[in-house]
Parts: sequence; structure tokens; C-alpha cells
Amino acid sequence: MYLHDKRLQYPVKVEKPNPVFAKALQQAIGGIEGEIRVCLQYFFQAWGARGPSKYRDMLLETATEELGHIEMLATAVALNLEGAPQALQEEVSSDPINGSVLNGMDMRQILSTGLAALPTDSNGVPFDTSHCYASGNLAADMFANVTAESTGRVLATRLYNMTDDPGMKDMISFLIARDTMHQQQWMAAIEDMGGVEKMFPIPNSFPQEQEASEFSYKFMGTSADRGEPTQGRWSSGKSMDGKAEFTSGPMEAHGEEPKLAPPDPMIGGAQKEQMSMVAQGAKIVKDALS
Amino acid sequence: MYLHDKRLQYPVKVEKPNPVFAKALQQAIGGIEGEIRVCLQYFFQAWGARGPSKYRDMLLETATEELGHIEMLATAVALNLEGAPQALQEEVSSDPINGSVLNGMDMRQILSTGLAALPTDSNGVPFDTSHCYASGNLAADMFANVTAESTGRVLATRLYNMTDDPGMKDMISFLIARDTMHQQQWMAAIEDMGGVEKMFPIPNSFPQEQEASEFSYKFMGTSADRGEPTQGRWSSGKSMDGKAEFTSGPMEAHGEEPKLAPPDPMIGGAQKEQMSMVAQGAKIVKDALS
Amino acid sequence: MYLHDKRLQYPVKVEKPNPVFAKALQQAIGGIEGEIRVCLQYFFQAWGARGPSKYRDMLLETATEELGHIEMLATAVALNLEGAPQALQEEVSSDPINGSVLNGMDMRQILSTGLAALPTDSNGVPFDTSHCYASGNLAADMFANVTAESTGRVLATRLYNMTDDPGMKDMISFLIARDTMHQQQWMAAIEDMGGVEKMFPIPNSFPQEQEASEFSYKFMGTSADRGEPTQGRWSSGKSMDGKAEFTSGPMEAHGEEPKLAPPDPMIGGAQKEQMSMVAQGAKIVKDALS
Amino acid sequence: MYLHDKRLQYPVKVEKPNPVFAKALQQAIGGIEGEIRVCLQYFFQAWGARGPSKYRDMLLETATEELGHIEMLATAVALNLEGAPQALQEEVSSDPINGSVLNGMDMRQILSTGLAALPTDSNGVPFDTSHCYASGNLAADMFANVTAESTGRVLATRLYNMTDDPGMKDMISFLIARDTMHQQQWMAAIEDMGGVEKMFPIPNSFPQEQEASEFSYKFMGTSADRGEPTQGRWSSGKSMDGKAEFTSGPMEAHGEEPKLAPPDPMIGGAQKEQMSMVAQGAKIVKDALS
Amino acid sequence: MYLHDKRLQYPVKVEKPNPVFAKALQQAIGGIEGEIRVCLQYFFQAWGARGPSKYRDMLLETATEELGHIEMLATAVALNLEGAPQALQEEVSSDPINGSVLNGMDMRQILSTGLAALPTDSNGVPFDTSHCYASGNLAADMFANVTAESTGRVLATRLYNMTDDPGMKDMISFLIARDTMHQQQWMAAIEDMGGVEKMFPIPNSFPQEQEASEFSYKFMGTSADRGEPTQGRWSSGKSMDGKAEFTSGPMEAHGEEPKLAPPDPMIGGAQKEQMSMVAQGAKIVKDALS
Amino acid sequence: MYLHDKRLQYPVKVEKPNPVFAKALQQAIGGIEGEIRVCLQYFFQAWGARGPSKYRDMLLETATEELGHIEMLATAVALNLEGAPQALQEEVSSDPINGSVLNGMDMRQILSTGLAALPTDSNGVPFDTSHCYASGNLAADMFANVTAESTGRVLATRLYNMTDDPGMKDMISFLIARDTMHQQQWMAAIEDMGGVEKMFPIPNSFPQEQEASEFSYKFMGTSADRGEPTQGRWSSGKSMDGKAEFTSGPMEAHGEEPKLAPPDPMIGGAQKEQMSMVAQGAKIVKDALS
Repeated sequence: MYLHDKRLQYPVKVEKPNPVFAKALQQAIGGIEGEIRVCLQYFFQAWGARGPSKYRDMLLETATEELGHIEMLATAVALNLEGAPQALQEEVSSDPINGSVLNGMDMRQILSTGLAALPTDSNGVPFDTSHCYASGNLAADMFANVTAESTGRVLATRLYNMTDDPGMKDMISFLIARDTMHQQQWMAAIEDMGGVEKMFPIPNSFPQEQEASEFSYKFMGTSADRGEPTQGRWSSGKSMDGKAEFTSGPMEAHGEEPKLAPPDPMIGGAQKEQMSMVAQGAKIVKDALS
Repeated sequence: MYLHDKRLQYPVKVEKPNPVFAKALQQAIGGIEGEIRVCLQYFFQAWGARGPSKYRDMLLETATEELGHIEMLATAVALNLEGAPQALQEEVSSDPINGSVLNGMDMRQILSTGLAALPTDSNGVPFDTSHCYASGNLAADMFANVTAESTGRVLATRLYNMTDDPGMKDMISFLIARDTMHQQQWMAAIEDMGGVEKMFPIPNSFPQEQEASEFSYKFMGTSADRGEPTQGRWSSGKSMDGKAEFTSGPMEAHGEEPKLAPPDPMIGGAQKEQMSMVAQGAKIVKDALS
Repeated sequence: MYLHDKRLQYPVKVEKPNPVFAKALQQAIGGIEGEIRVCLQYFFQAWGARGPSKYRDMLLETATEELGHIEMLATAVALNLEGAPQALQEEVSSDPINGSVLNGMDMRQILSTGLAALPTDSNGVPFDTSHCYASGNLAADMFANVTAESTGRVLATRLYNMTDDPGMKDMISFLIARDTMHQQQWMAAIEDMGGVEKMFPIPNSFPQEQEASEFSYKFMGTSADRGEPTQGRWSSGKSMDGKAEFTSGPMEAHGEEPKLAPPDPMIGGAQKEQMSMVAQGAKIVKDALS
Repeated sequence: MYLHDKRLQYPVKVEKPNPVFAKALQQAIGGIEGEIRVCLQYFFQAWGARGPSKYRDMLLETATEELGHIEMLATAVALNLEGAPQALQEEVSSDPINGSVLNGMDMRQILSTGLAALPTDSNGVPFDTSHCYASGNLAADMFANVTAESTGRVLATRLYNMTDDPGMKDMISFLIARDTMHQQQWMAAIEDMGGVEKMFPIPNSFPQEQEASEFSYKFMGTSADRGEPTQGRWSSGKSMDGKAEFTSGPMEAHGEEPKLAPPDPMIGGAQKEQMSMVAQGAKIVKDALS
Repeated sequence: MYLHDKRLQYPVKVEKPNPVFAKALQQAIGGIEGEIRVCLQYFFQAWGARGPSKYRDMLLETATEELGHIEMLATAVALNLEGAPQALQEEVSSDPINGSVLNGMDMRQILSTGLAALPTDSNGVPFDTSHCYASGNLAADMFANVTAESTGRVLATRLYNMTDDPGMKDMISFLIARDTMHQQQWMAAIEDMGGVEKMFPIPNSFPQEQEASEFSYKFMGTSADRGEPTQGRWSSGKSMDGKAEFTSGPMEAHGEEPKLAPPDPMIGGAQKEQMSMVAQGAKIVKDALS
Repeated sequence: MYLHDKRLQYPVKVEKPNPVFAKALQQAIGGIEGEIRVCLQYFFQAWGARGPSKYRDMLLETATEELGHIEMLATAVALNLEGAPQALQEEVSSDPINGSVLNGMDMRQILSTGLAALPTDSNGVPFDTSHCYASGNLAADMFANVTAESTGRVLATRLYNMTDDPGMKDMISFLIARDTMHQQQWMAAIEDMGGVEKMFPIPNSFPQEQEASEFSYKFMGTSADRGEPTQGRWSSGKSMDGKAEFTSGPMEAHGEEPKLAPPDPMIGGAQKEQMSMVAQGAKIVKDALS
């Protein structure tokens, strides 16, 4: 269960409200790189964790912290909206710069919330929880978390560069720092379990003799000129799991052209022509064979 | 631009069609762990790549390969649906086992496609392309790709265990092998750029003196008893980027309770009571202070 | 900011795991009537609240409680999935009842999470945060909250009736009790602000002389026979805001048939025929008039 | 079944087309507070109504009226788009004000419709019908309807304040008036069934002895300092259903830390380390106990 | 504006309720081939129609009719749900056939609506209004309408084959008949404007000398063996618009490998390695050239 | 399986980057009229095709071509973003015109991708694959394809008119030309199967004696004045399938007012009042009858 403290984890100050920046900040709230995503992703990983319990506990701690980051950002949005233009007539008629401010705003921050944050991204697209990865495999989930914190920190640095408000820069420098920590925390969990090399291939509990192993360490090129695939660390040398050597070569077709059964008249829905042409073709083949 | 070969990359055979397995396979087509996702994710990363070109080229090769995997799975779905029950009356009245087959099917594979695959997951939810991560940061994107291939391989092993059809097991063993390769290929790209340690924190081009660095390597606990946070590789020892030592401690509130301006009467929409109580409160405070 | 306690708010026990009930419980997690929705809805209302602060504080308290309810339900899902069937072959071949269990399951609880909860509804549709209403108007938001708790309690009673597992019935009886409280809490907030009558029409800060008040208290019937509209408390007697009398009558057309300008050739995209027929028509009218 | 009258329910005139206002109006068409939502919500409530029939009939009448409101707004959008800028080059090069008009427009109103309304909100997000609440419980549905009309009227007053076009102000004053009526109509239906007090808790047909009633009328605080919860009408005095007294107190943990079974090797997908660490832990516990 | 008649357009009777068929019928309500789609699609086409008015009028008439079809189907769903199983325990323990009925049901028809229709498809995915095509080009829209009625009639015939309830078969035979009419009605509108040949290419108002006309009537093959493309009516003979002859040949690359500028350090977010390797590469090229 | 050629199908040049046009181009990538849609739609039609194989082959060829069109457009977006403004402070403070450029941009093209294309439409809404129609009926699918290429070409001509960059105009003139071809190609496939008349009604394999044929060729008017429906090619003359004559007349109610069973107390969730009023009503009727 959960408790709250009315204070924010870190100060949120806005010196000069900027309603266009309020729109940009939405990406860090409800975007796929944002805080609702990491918060729910870590919670669902924790709630479904089947041990060892220390990973569950760690996930709970960071999930709970992230909830406070959404709060900070929502507060930042509300503060950036104070004094925002709200009527089309004044703006456009009198002032091209302010008129353009209204055009750059997220209109729903006026129309739907009365100057507050939305659970959406900077284009107004609502967050959808399918982005909360929780696979039941700890290594896969830790990589998902590194990814989330990496795209999150990329986003945060772009927001940092977009504003010159000292309060906003201060708040974002804190969020960047936490992303720095969280990225490494999830990599540290990988190391805690034995290290990157031992983790692969994920899941490492599947018996590898059941995979078609002649294809397991070969980089395949798809160039239509059938030349050598792009070379790099991935095309030769030891594989990352230390179990094999990488090789490379052009992709080949091991399968045949697929043949599906003709349309089923019982299911209905095909055109007569589909069924009769197929039947005719079958007859020609059959006659030829007999 | 792209070309095609009518043959499949690997054989797709189904010995005993199973329409319920056709539903399960949908997860590998249009699920968040599935092939449409990796295919489009790698393509968008490649198409937006601003160099060095070898990473772009490698992305194009694997994206193109993945397109062929969707094809294989769509073929497998169609083959598993051949001979599927299609009418409620026969099934339920005569045969509890077959009746249950119809109940376990994806009805849209009958109603919408006439026994073919859908671009949806195993619950019929359409794939939505917001899952195609392409951040413009190569390290973040490589971790996103490791994640995609890891959750993809986890899914594939579960599908492998779910069926006993030899053709399906063979096809899936190939897909598992390719996931093995692709996971490591993206980790190899990380190594190709200098290795995991050098990549962090992602993005590594942001000047770290601009982040609030006292928070950059500290694991924070949120336990309401204010005790020590969960210990592990993440709470002490060298950080993963080799730049600092991890520390840990309970989370503290550095900020204050947030104060937003009262509702703006010009924006409209607040209740009178909200505005008057706030005004009254402000007066009381003001009177007290004067 | 937020803290956690590893213990659950209320015990969650499952005596006899039922994977089909695990699917039903998803509706209470990620359904539109579920706990993710109320949790985020109350948080966003709180984070955007512009006073008086007591409503903000109350919202924070209940939002934080709801987070713990998602945790309870996610735990209940995981417990109900223990021992679930996982392979099609065993099930269908040997046992019609268990085979039907697999058919009734949410396949993604096997394939995507490895026997854990998803942030989706009982049909596997991910929760989308557009359902988190936070309008900036306290009365509208309180009614939204009554609605959420009412549909939530309706759902909970249906889940209660669906199971006979004593542990599940106990857990749900707790959730029902909390819904009882929360429904009334939001109505109490309405009373706290002055009562239902005073709240209407919402928002009550808009000057009513600016609305077309001859239509403000009239129930309009749309029956094609132009008879009397359905009678009830809404068609006569004092209006709910005490400001007028309800009346009723058949709906009338006060407007005309709409006339839009012809397609703009500069925008492009219309067929030639659309433009020429319209032009011709205009000419005929013009000629007739001249 | 349904019939139409080519005339509009109320006049829709635009004196000075404003394409940015055309974008704002979209929120009232396809937004969650908009007219598609109420129209379909009332229809689905009516079509599923299992009596008494007068509520079904009333729902049908208002649903049918709302359809005409979508029509009015779609007409208003089309009229506001007449003469809109359509080419980037002219605008930006010659005229900052008009350039900003294009930037403030919904581009799909040019690109997708050729100057007409879309079934989306003001950010271009399509309406999704999960917002049409119809629970089968009349009281819950009436509160959902009050909510819809309240957020709808809040939105309408914001749109009213955003424009100074007399035709638009006139049309919106009509829509505001109808929202005034409809809010009260749904509250009147509550009264018609016996009044607010009798309706609670919703559903009132569930035997309350089956709920965990010690938690049914208690407001729980979640403050980490374990102090008194926020006081108000909800923390003491008679409950809104007249059946009990409100109380309040800090939230307590009645449950334990959840314990899930270890990962199931049959389901596959967990890392070896997850399974072995858990097994090891179990052995230590077992040894200690023996 | 709109009016209603309480009677249904056509009788809806269910002799033997079948809750699994109630799930299947959802596809015809909220599926992409369903009635909500055509209803709203025709309404939005009508409301945005800029003449000639007869097409607008015709669209309004059919849109209004379709609203009544949603009503018929929602009624059919409710009738099919009467007497549905509702508790897991009874079903599974006593009766494999009925147990499987519950497994085949849409659980939200119990949990969310209390035995009524949802605005979703047969997999529970809510309808999303982006499927309502209204392009402002009458010919494109008429083809969109033919498509909608064709996929709709395909769906209806599959539903017809799936049931043996005489009432349901009768209702569906009516819907099939209306789809027959509506398909042809939209084709008739094409003929009314001058016929298929004259309509192409859509839009026919764009000056064809502005298109790269050497590519306008050539079927391009993408086979990796660079052989002849698939032959058919599309590879030779007069084009469908009568303006040219079809030709065919393998696809060629007329463009070059794309070259994007290196990552912009001002935008932030790229890895150092991306920027330095690109810079290094540029230097090598420059040195080589100098 | 698939192969790639690093070169583009057609040159993509941008003389003067325009970030607002980069936003507009998104509609042609991830919009419902865009290239991701046609690409995946044709692929899924091909992969599910059950013969005759020439249609499958043709679909594969054009699907593969369309993949290259997404690539061209993604490249065009990236080139249009080069040199885009990225910081709010500089823009708004110094320059109304450039400030408005930032306001007109898709912020996610900065924040999420670092100046590259997104798989979304011009409003930032992600593409959702439910738009990929593949019904298993060739005629329906061909009409779906004509529709896709028609709305696609309408969109392309609007984009052509929106820009004056010679490189962009050249690229779009190529895409327009390919849309010209593809529209006709799908109509040619209809002719290849026997022609438009023979295709109707779609599906033409359903025995027409099973449809309620008195409604199959009648245009029904819904005007509330019960007058004649709108006349046109659709109201008289031979039907498009040559099997009947069109007729017309006002719509009639053949059904009755629907009567659903009262709420089921076992399902729970209805209000007591709903159940008792219905029961009371039933008693009154019963008493009257006895």
C-alpha cells in the first residue's frame, strides 16, 4: 500500500510562464518516453514478480519515486500555463507574437482542463498502458527499463535545451540526474544476476538445443545484389554470450512459396470467381498429372 | 527500395491445424513483442539515421529480414485455421471439445478475414505504431532493440512450449534462433561504438555538469518506515559508467507543497465556490498578515 | 512525493486458483470502471487543483489509496493464475473441462507476462488515459468521481457474484466497501461546497443571461409523430437548480438547411463534377433571379 | 428507427471564418466532453435498457437531439474553414499573422477532409467509443450523464469565451442552454427514482451485509506522517445514504506482503537466475526450519 | 436535425438465446465492417458536403437508416444474452458445454453492461472514429462507401452462416438485403456523376501534366529475380480511365542512397560516438578530396 | 522473403527545408490515407490470399513497392527538418515568423526523434493497423484498395499544392503518378475477374434467395415529412448488378418497439428501483389481463 507527502520531491519553480513549453512538457508526462510509463511499468513488474524478492522490492521503490516525478511535471505544466492567452480575437488581431503563442499551445490545456496538465503526450495523444512492459523475465524487463530511462533522458536533455527558464532548467537537471541513476540501476541489476554475458540469450532458461542453432549467430544481409552484409562487431568475433562465433552472409530462402487451401465455401464471403478459378486450376493440374 | 522473393525464408508446415494456436500466434504478429513492431522499428531507425552509415545499413538489413518473419507467421496462422469450426450450432450441440475450440478462437479470424491472419495481437487489439521506438540516439535505440528481441524470444519460447505440432515447433525454433542472433547483434553494436560502460549515461553527449549530480548515483528508498533501501549491486560499488560510486538512502522531500494560482475567471469553467473560497482564504491570510 | 509499505491494504488470498477469473479481474484493473482509472483520475485532479486546498488534499489521499487497490488486484490475478494450463495439446486432447479453461483465459497472461496481471481490461484492451477526467471544475469532477465509483461498485458486485472462492469474496467485499465510502465522499464534497442545488448548472460561474435561456429548462421530444415527450420529473415541476420550472414539448427546427460554400479549387481534391455541377446550379439560380 | 429533417435545430452562422476556432470546435465534436460521446452514450443506454420503459424513452429522445448537435457543430467547423490558408509558401513568406493562422490550424482539416469537420478532438485524436458508459444500472448511468453534460457545458463556456464572432456566440449560447437542461434532466431522473439518498450506494440492490462494512463509511488518510486525514463533510456527520456516520483515520495495512509462487518452468520465459535464486532461498528456509 | 420512431425498422426476434452469438454480433456493431462506422461515415460525408446537394441529401437518408441498424443489432445482442451463465463456479463444475459457453462469451457483456451490447467489435476493441472516411472528394468517398458495404455484407453472410436461430437468420437476411442495395447505390452515384471511367484518376481535377506521367500507367514488378511482373488486365490494354495503355516492367531505382545531415548537437540527444564518427568520416572524405 | 536496395525508388530532394511541411508530410506516412496503411494492407491481403495466385502475386509486388514509398517520405521529412528551430526562447523573443514556425511544428519530431519522421499522422496520432482491410473477398478488397489509393491521391495533390519547393513537388508528382496507376490496377483486377457488374452484390457467392430481397434494390428515404426520397441514378433504372430495377420510397417501420427481459437479479448491478418498477408494471398488466 502507499502513502503520500504533500511536498514535492524537488522544487518546481517557473519564473516566466511559457504555455508552449507547457505543451512540450506533456511529452515527459504522457509520452512513450515519459513518467506515467516508467511508473506503471515498474509497478506492474513488481506486482507480478515471482522472486527473488529483492528485485521486486527495488522495483517498488523506484516505481514509487516515479509517481512523484509525474507530480512534479504536472505542477510544472500548471505553472507554465498561468496567464496564458485564451481568446482568439484579442490575440490574432493585436499581436502576432502572442497570437502565435496561442497557436503553439495544446488547446485541450485550455478547453479540457482549465490550465492544467493532461495524461497525454505533447501531441495530445493519451497514454496507453500497452507501453508498460512486464514480461515475467527479469533480464528482458531490465533491458526494457534501461530503454525507458534512456529515451527518457534523451527527451529530458532536449527539454532542457528548449527552455531558458532557470526554474525549469533546475527541475529538469534533477530529472536528468535521476535518469542517470535509474539507467545504471537496471544495468546493475543485470550485473547483480551475473552480468550481461550470462544473461544472453534471453530467456537463458530455454534449452538451446531446441533452437535451429545454425541460424543463431549469423548476421544475414538482404541486399538485392546478394553482396556481403554490412560488417561490424556483429559479423565476426565471439558472440556476446560467449557461446559461439558470429558469421555473416546473404539471406537465403529455405522455404517454398506458400500454398494455402482454397477459400472455404462454408465460411462464406469469398467471390464466386475466387472459388471457381481455383477449382479450375486444380482440375488442370490434376488432369495434367493423370 | 525493396524487392521480394515469393519463397519463404524458412519452411512453414502445419501437420494438424489448431485454430486456437492460430489465435496464440497473433501475439507474435501484432503484439507489442511481435514482428510488425521490430520490422517497423528498425525501418524507422534506419530511415532517420544520421550516421555513421554502417549502423543504418545494418538496421535496413534486419528490418527487411523481419518483414519476412511476419509473412511466415501470417502463413502459419492461415494454415492453422484450415478446417476450423465456423457455426455455433453444430459445435455446441454435438461436441464439448470442438465447441470449446470455437470458443477459444479469435472470432475475427472467421468474421473479418475468412480464415487468415490479422494485424492484431492475440486479444484482437490492433498494433499501434507508437511502439516503434526511434529516438535519434543510437545507444537508446540499440537497447530498445535488445528489449524487443528479448521479449520477442520470451514470447517465442512460450509459443514453442504451447504446441506439439512438429511443423510449428520447427518454424518457431528458427524464429528463436534469429532472436538469439538479433539480441546479440544489437549488443554488439553497443560494443562496436565503444562498449556498455562508455555508452552511459545515455545520451552521453549531454554535459554532466548541467545535471544535479548529487542525485545521479544514489539509489533512493521509498519505504514508509524510512529504513534502508533494498541493497544490491545498485546501492554500492562503482557505477556502471565508471564515473562514480553508487550510494543509497531514504528518499527526501526537497520541494515544498505546490501552490498554483487560483482559477482564472477569464478561462471560465471553475465553480463560483472554488473562486470565492480561494479569494476568502487569500483575504484571511492577508488580514492576518496586516 | 510518495512512499510505500510492502504490506497490502487488505489480505488477498486465493483458495482455488481460477485462471478464467483472473481474466475477469482484469476489468477491475485496466477497464474503464477499474482502479488504474480512478487512481490516475484523482491524481490528475489533485495535481491541477487551484484551490481550495482541502479538496486537493482529499483527492491526494484517495488517489494514493487507489494505487494500493491496483496492487491488490494485480496480486489476485497472479494468484489465480498459479497452476494454469499452458499447452494446447494436453488440454484439448485429454480433458474437455480444462481445455475449456484454456479457451476462457486471457492468452496474454501466459504469453506476455508469464502468469501475471496486465494493465488491460478483461478483453485485453489496454487502458487509455483519456478516461481520466479532470476538468478544472470541482463539481463536474466530483460527479465524474461519483460515476467512476458507481460503475466500479457495479463491476465489483458482479465479480463478487461470479466467484465462490472465499478469499476472493473477502477481498472483493473490501473493495465494495471502499467504493461505498468513495461514492459518498464525492457527494459529500458537493454538499461541502453548498449542495447539489447550488452546484447547478455546472459551471455555475457562467453568467446565465448569456445562454439562450428559453431552451434551458425545456425537455424536448423527438418522436416522429410529434406527440408529447416522455413525462417524468424532468418535464414539469421546479428545476433541480431551483431557478425555473421544467416544461416540455416536441423539438422544432429553428435553423435552416445548411449551405456551405462550393469546394475550393485551391485546396484541391474535389472531383471536377462536384465543382462543375455546383457552378452550374449557381448559374441557374442566378439566371432565374436576374 | 430514425428520421431526419434537413433543417438544423438552431441557426449556425459565421460572420468571420476563423480556421483556428474550427480546430477548437473539434473538441465539442469528437472530444471526450463532446457530442458524439453523449449521442452514442445515450443511445447505448437506451438500446440496452431493461425497464422501466419511460427512462428508455427519455434516453432515446435526448440521444436523438444530440445527433443534431453534432450536425450543428460540424456545420460550424465547415463554415469557419471557408477561405482558410492552404499553402505554406504564401503564408510564411508574406505575413506573420496569417502564417500563424496556418500553424494554429488542424492540418487534417485541409489534408484529410478538404475543409470540413473530423470525428476527432481538437488535437486530432479520433473519438473512441469506450467513452460511452452504459452499465445497466440506471443510477450509475444518470451520474455518468450528469458528468458528461457538466464537462460538456464547461467546455462550451470556454469556447464561448474564446470567440467574438456573433454567430458562433449565438450557436454556443444555445448549446449551453441545452446542457443546462440535460444536466438537470438526469438529476431529475435520479429524483424520479426516489432521490439521491435512496440511490446510494450504487448499486443499491447488493445486500450490504456482504460488504466489509467496517470500511464502508470511513475516510482514510494516506499522509506519511500518519496524522489526521483532511477534514470536511466526508469525515464526520451522517453518510449521504443516511445509513451510517462518516468517520476518519489514517490508512492501515491489514494485509501482508504478497507472496507469489516461483516462476513456472513449464510456462517458460523466466531467466535461470530467477528460478535458481528462488529455489536456493526456499532451501535455506527449509533447512533452517528442519 | 433528427427524429425517432420507437419501432424497429425490421423485426428482431431470438428463439434460443446464444451468448456466444451475442459476442459475434458485436463485430457488426462496433467492428470496422460494422454499422457505427457506416452511420458516422455517411453523416460526416453529408455534413461536410459542399454540393451538389442531391448527394448530400442521399447521404443523410442512408446515414439515418444505418442508425436504426445499430439499434436492431444492439437489440439482438441483448436478446441473445438473456439467461446467460454468469458465475464461474456453477458452470465449470457441473457442465463442460455450458462452461465452454461462458468461456466463449464477451465478459464485458456481463461485467460492464449487465447483458447488453457494447460499442466494440467481437474482440472487445472499442470503435475508433478514424475509420469514418470523408475526404471531400465524392468519388473517393463513394468508393469508400462501396468498400464499407462490401466488407459489411461479407461479414453479414458469415454471421448468417454461423447461426441457425430462425429469428436471427431473418434479421440478418434483411441487413444483407440492405447491404445489397447500399453497395449499388454508391456505385450508382458514381454513374450519376458520369461513370467509372470518367471518375479516374481520383481526384480528376488535378492537372495530369503535373504528375510524373511516365509512371502513371506502368505496373512495376519487385521480384528479386528481375523477371516480368505478374500479368493481367493491369499490365496491358487500355487503362481504366481510357487515357493510356497499361505497360509493365521490373521496378528500377531512380533515386540515390539518401544522405541526411549529421546529428544536430543543438537538438541534443545523439551519442557522442554518432557525432564523432560522422565528423571523422567527413574529415576523411574532405582530406581525400583536397 | 524480402530484399533491399539502398537507393530510393525516386529522388528525394529538398531545396529549402520547411519544418511545418515536415509535419504535413506525416499524414502521407502514418495517416489513414498514407503509405504504411497501403503497404500493410496489401501485404496482409497477399499473405492471406487463397487463390487464384496471380492476384496474390500482384498484391505482393505493389505492397513491396509501397514500402519504398514510406522510405521516400521518411527521408523527405528528415530533410525538411534540417536546421529547424529547437529552442523556445530564441524564437519567440526575437522573431515572430520563426516563432510561428516552431508553433507549427510537430514537437515530437524534435523531442522524440531528434529531427526524423514518426510513424504517425500529421496530428501525431500513431497509425493503428485496424485500417489494413483484408476480408478474404477479393472484390471487397479491391474496392478497399481503390479507396485507399483515391484518398491517398487526394492527399498527395493537397500536399503538392501546399509546397513550392521544387524537389518536394517533383517527389510528390511521382507519388501522384503511382497512385494513378494503382487506382486503376485494382479496378483492372475487378475487370480481370469479370467486371463491375458481375462482382455485385459482394460477396456474389451468397445465395440471393436467402436475402430479404424485397429490400435489396429499394432506396429508402428518411425524411420526417415522409416525402419522396432524393432521386438519382440510384432510385430508378437497372440496378448495378443488372439483376433488378431500382425503386424508392419512404422508410417504414416493419418491426415493433423492442421488449427486453427485466434486469437479471443474478447478474447483479441494477438498482432496486429498476427491478421493482418493472415487476410492478408486469403485475399491473397481468391483473388487467386476468
